Amino acid sequence: MLSKEMYELGAKRSAIRDLFEYGKQQAAIVGKENVFDFSIGNPTVPAPGCVKEAMLELLETQKSEEIHGYTSAQGDFEVRKGIADYMNSTYNCQLKADNFYMTCGAAASLSIILKALTESPEDEIVIIAPHFPEYQVFIKSAGAKIVVVPADTENFQIKMDLLEKAITSNTKGIIINSPNNPSGVVYSEKTLKDLADLLKKKSKEYQKPLYLISDEPYREIVYDDVKILYVPDYYENTIVCYSYSKSLSLPGDRIGYILVPDCVENGKDIYTAVCGAGRALGYVCAPSFFQKVIMKCQGKTSDIALYDVNRKLLYNELTKMGYQCVRPDGAFYLFVKSLEENAVSFSENAKKFNLLIVPSDDFGCSGYVRISYCVDPEMIKRSFGAFQKLRDLY
Amino acid sequence: MLSKEMYELGAKRSAIRDLFEYGKQQAAIVGKENVFDFSIGNPTVPAPGCVKEAMLELLETQKSEEIHGYTSAQGDFEVRKGIADYMNSTYNCQLKADNFYMTCGAAASLSIILKALTESPEDEIVIIAPHFPEYQVFIKSAGAKIVVVPADTENFQIKMDLLEKAITSNTKGIIINSPNNPSGVVYSEKTLKDLADLLKKKSKEYQKPLYLISDEPYREIVYDDVKILYVPDYYENTIVCYSYSKSLSLPGDRIGYILVPDCVENGKDIYTAVCGAGRALGYVCAPSFFQKVIMKCQGKTSDIALYDVNRKLLYNELTKMGYQCVRPDGAFYLFVKSLEENAVSFSENAKKFNLLIVPSDDFGCSGYVRISYCVDPEMIKRSFGAFQKLRDLY
Repeated sequence: MLSKEMYELGAKRSAIRDLFEYGKQQAAIVGKENVFDFSIGNPTVPAPGCVKEAMLELLETQKSEEIHGYTSAQGDFEVRKGIADYMNSTYNCQLKADNFYMTCGAAASLSIILKALTESPEDEIVIIAPHFPEYQVFIKSAGAKIVVVPADTENFQIKMDLLEKAITSNTKGIIINSPNNPSGVVYSEKTLKDLADLLKKKSKEYQKPLYLISDEPYREIVYDDVKILYVPDYYENTIVCYSYSKSLSLPGDRIGYILVPDCVENGKDIYTAVCGAGRALGYVCAPSFFQKVIMKCQGKTSDIALYDVNRKLLYNELTKMGYQCVRPDGAFYLFVKSLEENAVSFSENAKKFNLLIVPSDDFGCSGYVRISYCVDPEMIKRSFGAFQKLRDLY
Repeated sequence: MLSKEMYELGAKRSAIRDLFEYGKQQAAIVGKENVFDFSIGNPTVPAPGCVKEAMLELLETQKSEEIHGYTSAQGDFEVRKGIADYMNSTYNCQLKADNFYMTCGAAASLSIILKALTESPEDEIVIIAPHFPEYQVFIKSAGAKIVVVPADTENFQIKMDLLEKAITSNTKGIIINSPNNPSGVVYSEKTLKDLADLLKKKSKEYQKPLYLISDEPYREIVYDDVKILYVPDYYENTIVCYSYSKSLSLPGDRIGYILVPDCVENGKDIYTAVCGAGRALGYVCAPSFFQKVIMKCQGKTSDIALYDVNRKLLYNELTKMGYQCVRPDGAFYLFVKSLEENAVSFSENAKKFNLLIVPSDDFGCSGYVRISYCVDPEMIKRSFGAFQKLRDLY
């Protein structure tokens, strides 16, 4: 009667969503202030002022059809040029408008590039644990095979020997995500260099390009002295998927891009296939009004200092209590070692104290919980008692 | 190296886009005022005042995370409830929030519902000529077979005998589009009744539901005394795909919905599969801000009277010149008989007078041209000389 596969995908709720819904139910029972919901990565720091200013300016100065009309399928030329100019001045690269294809956010970027690259059901896409769970959905939906490289549980960088084993003659691409969801880790320059060396070696061995898909929704969300690296500087066959969801706190507005730099082998053809894949998936153009909004906010971000306050607060207090926590250099997640082997059972125990933390199993890596700290700092402070009680259980 | 299919889809330009780009080039040579571009269906009537008011009100009264945050995948509950309430009071139906799944516009609605319904490569989706060309892309992309019913060139309703022949045991669904792009025709009540009778008969014959997918982006754009009919009243197994692109002149903002009424057989399961298909295609949620904007604009439309002025102006003048034209009751297209058998060659001749009109071949019906009259009425007036010269060629 209907697609069994789509039915099952629709019926299967994610562990994150389940916790989130549970939290809403609990709040009705015990009061909102007594539920400590660290489940969802929905930015709580407001969009920077430039967003509202840009929206008002566009409304006051532009004609309806200019802000609400279709743009070309790849996005408004001036918008793409604006992004290229910003990237060039920031990362010292030489991008043009036509290297960019505007999308409805990171999920769309990934779905489109995977559909554009996948030729046959033998094609393999390599992902590195811990990874964003939806990668599995996007890869399967594009018709490729999923290959997961086990986590480097020492540093949460990449175990190059494990990655090397995962790459075969069928490998089409490798997805990386730094700053990482869920670990909060930022890949070091050494990691990028080693990764590039390995991919170049394997490309030569198999006599074909291996595409690195760099999923960068958290690009600007880094702390302390961490430097933001431009991945194509390290490896030429890099395609960047970006979203303004986190950097500008606009997750609901669905706006991002795919960047195919000129240095990518077959880059022009890939860009054409991206246009085809966008069309095939039902994307007509990225939302026009928000294309114009983000162009006016290049280089701006939400107030990351507010996330940093939360990060330090949680990290310091939890480690003081004896929790083991991966060093969180970016994004807004803490990846904390479960106090028992089974993180699902650990997360269930946490619920007894109305503490909602996501077990790491769906991220392809067992034995951890993800704590989203894009939350109200007051909630963090109120949650410490619950974290202590959870600690005391073990 | 990459998907040949996606590359070809990206490389193949539509006849409409080609004409549109040609027009921009010609404008640079002969002056914008001397090019008569009737190629594109991009609304020129501004969005109604309620859109700007809603945007400003949301910006002034709501917190950033409330207007820019993720909504649930199926869309904000209050938004869906608001649409249900509006539909119930307008069409006397009994819809609930959970019958609606918010989407990134009509193309997304169609892509998602087709993906949700398609089980096997044997599945067939029937479309009725003349039809929107992208239907072919969406059906193919969902993995089903395309079956085109030839046009009823007398009235541009549906030739029921031809439709009956097109329905087989593999038919999964039938797409209708009224008011129609490209013909401008609105299906009569008799057509809907005959269609329902035929589909019920065939459902019984094959002992399975045949889903009617009613693609309604032009629902409210009707003229004179034409009544808007609620299709599920005529045939229970109707799934409605809607978009605010045309009714509110918001094509770039990508906002619409899929409506699966309770009367649809397996409706709940289809809705679940819709959720799965949205996820598989990379849609996270429909644009949040514009979900809230359209909720505040239920029942409002752009000023359709302005399109009506254009419609009468063009229809009267062209028929006076001797052009034969399908009676245009809705949407903003005239479907005019080509003065020679080959509409592509006719459209090429029109270009000699800088008259850009789209040959009907891509709409699955030869021998006509589509004239989009969502344009400046002054351009229409300036174009009559060119139409006369084109007429005089034959």
